[in-house]
Amino acid sequence: MESRVLLALDFGGTKHSAAIATIGSREWQALQRVQSPPEPNAHTDMSLMLDLARDLLAGRTLAAIGVSFGGPVNAATGTVLLSHHVPGWENVPLQDQLRSEFNVPVSVDNDANVAALGEWRFGAGQGCASLLYVTVSTGVGGGWVLDGRVFHGTDSMAGEIGHIVVQPDGPACVCGKRGCVEAIAAGPNLARRARERLAQGAGQETQPHQAGHILRELVGGDLSAVTAVHVARAAQAGDPVACEVLDGAARALGLGLGTGITLMNPQRVVLGGGVTKSGERYWRTVRDTVRAAVLSGMTMDIVPAALDDDAPLWGAIALAERAL
Amino acid sequence: MESRVLLALDFGGTKHSAAIATIGSREWQALQRVQSPPEPNAHTDMSLMLDLARDLLAGRTLAAIGVSFGGPVNAATGTVLLSHHVPGWENVPLQDQLRSEFNVPVSVDNDANVAALGEWRFGAGQGCASLLYVTVSTGVGGGWVLDGRVFHGTDSMAGEIGHIVVQPDGPACVCGKRGCVEAIAAGPNLARRARERLAQGAGQETQPHQAGHILRELVGGDLSAVTAVHVARAAQAGDPVACEVLDGAARALGLGLGTGITLMNPQRVVLGGGVTKSGERYWRTVRDTVRAAVLSGMTMDIVPAALDDDAPLWGAIALAERAL
Repeated sequence: MESRVLLALDFGGTKHSAAIATIGSREWQALQRVQSPPEPNAHTDMSLMLDLARDLLAGRTLAAIGVSFGGPVNAATGTVLLSHHVPGWENVPLQDQLRSEFNVPVSVDNDANVAALGEWRFGAGQGCASLLYVTVSTGVGGGWVLDGRVFHGTDSMAGEIGHIVVQPDGPACVCGKRGCVEAIAAGPNLARRARERLAQGAGQETQPHQAGHILRELVGGDLSAVTAVHVARAAQAGDPVACEVLDGAARALGLGLGTGITLMNPQRVVLGGGVTKSGERYWRTVRDTVRAAVLSGMTMDIVPAALDDDAPLWGAIALAERAL
Repeated sequence: MESRVLLALDFGGTKHSAAIATIGSREWQALQRVQSPPEPNAHTDMSLMLDLARDLLAGRTLAAIGVSFGGPVNAATGTVLLSHHVPGWENVPLQDQLRSEFNVPVSVDNDANVAALGEWRFGAGQGCASLLYVTVSTGVGGGWVLDGRVFHGTDSMAGEIGHIVVQPDGPACVCGKRGCVEAIAAGPNLARRARERLAQGAGQETQPHQAGHILRELVGGDLSAVTAVHVARAAQAGDPVACEVLDGAARALGLGLGTGITLMNPQRVVLGGGVTKSGERYWRTVRDTVRAAVLSGMTMDIVPAALDDDAPLWGAIALAERAL
């Protein structure tokens, strides 16, 4: 019986996770998540993760390591290009460093690609010849698994579905363009639009059926507290303002997915990330929008992610399997 | 020395071509193009092509056949699904029929995919790990070559860049949506918009500097005669109406390409088809639009096709090589 283990590392922006699984297993032998210290840098991230890993391994025999990193990575060399959240990660040869440290094969990729691979290998995308994975949370990221391999593109930048334009005159995006999927559909942007609508006066009257009233009540009148979760909850309770904002976000995502399907005709699309848990109305709007955006005859199989926050860790296990 | 030959067949809507090349050669041994008879059907197409092929072969030893078909094909089985131009092509097992007829391996794919493969193997895309080929003529078609293979998608429908929406309130498209790349950028649609602008009165005055005057002169005042070639010529001569219409078409194409690059980050984009011969201004507008539409750091290498009308034939040779 194989008793060597695989180590999965997930470097997030503000939290890190590590887990181990026996080769061929679909259950964790051990898993730990920790928050970054205040003002983290690449060095604190790395020593935190090494401690976590040594702790989990505790004398077990390590066979290989897979790594999910929350930022752009050159997957061919396993070099981190930078982190958008943590300084000091510029051009760090993470794969080489971990190989020197543990003396086993190591494979590194960015979190969206690794999560895509995780869903393909262990989650909602199993058996698919082509898969588009999209995560909608603080941002909108995507990854392609084609013929069982992550498709990276020539600069390791494939899958940037968050930055395709779906509303040419839409809100400004962090990337400098207007009306990107992310600018409309990401959680913080969706919440901001709801706050703007409330600030324009919606829901101020006392009648409970007034548009915006439910959402305003949910945050006790403190508009600055509105998050995407509140918007989803208020929409489920029938608040017209929340419905309008959530529908807009779902339509933006649906248009982006429709474009992705039109271009690549994948067998399945897997949607993960907190915002995709916004309920039935959200999913119906996404699917209706995609249906109207693709050519007749094109497969439209859009399903929720199965692995939730563990997708990058399971994807890292899949990377480790291949590094063996 | 290898003396067996490969046969390339290109079933177009109104014209057909066949050519032969020795295995490994980059020159035609023989090539013939013929027009379809009036009111063609699948049967007349097929017997015309068989005559052409037998004529060209003239006793040479055939090793394999590659086929480009102008319509949707199930490439896995080599079955033509239908032709949008010629009746009788519904579910025709073209690969099986040709194999029975000639007793050699046969491979069939649709024309955009085959042209993409042709440019990758013999033309402007040689050596690229990932290639998007787009042809802009009567319609706008596309094909992906990833890791040296055509990427078909789950329904053999990948590459439909002509039907991604770039202008949500734009003109109606044959596919039923509005503002698709094809609805704006394809030759006949571009020409129609120019005719509409002229019909609104542009260029009727006699001053040569009047917007639309040059374009109107080019067709001797007969608006119904305006084609995309006239628009391109008038734009090159500085006609403001022609420039405006051509710019709009180039921007629509550029937005579509920008989306394709954002999603897949290909190493190169190859543009073929008559409309892409509209001159320097057209190319500059396409490239400027793409640059503004992609993320910083993404490769943007957009080049003209090298094989022109021969791309599907050379692609068919590449298919035949693989069928060997």
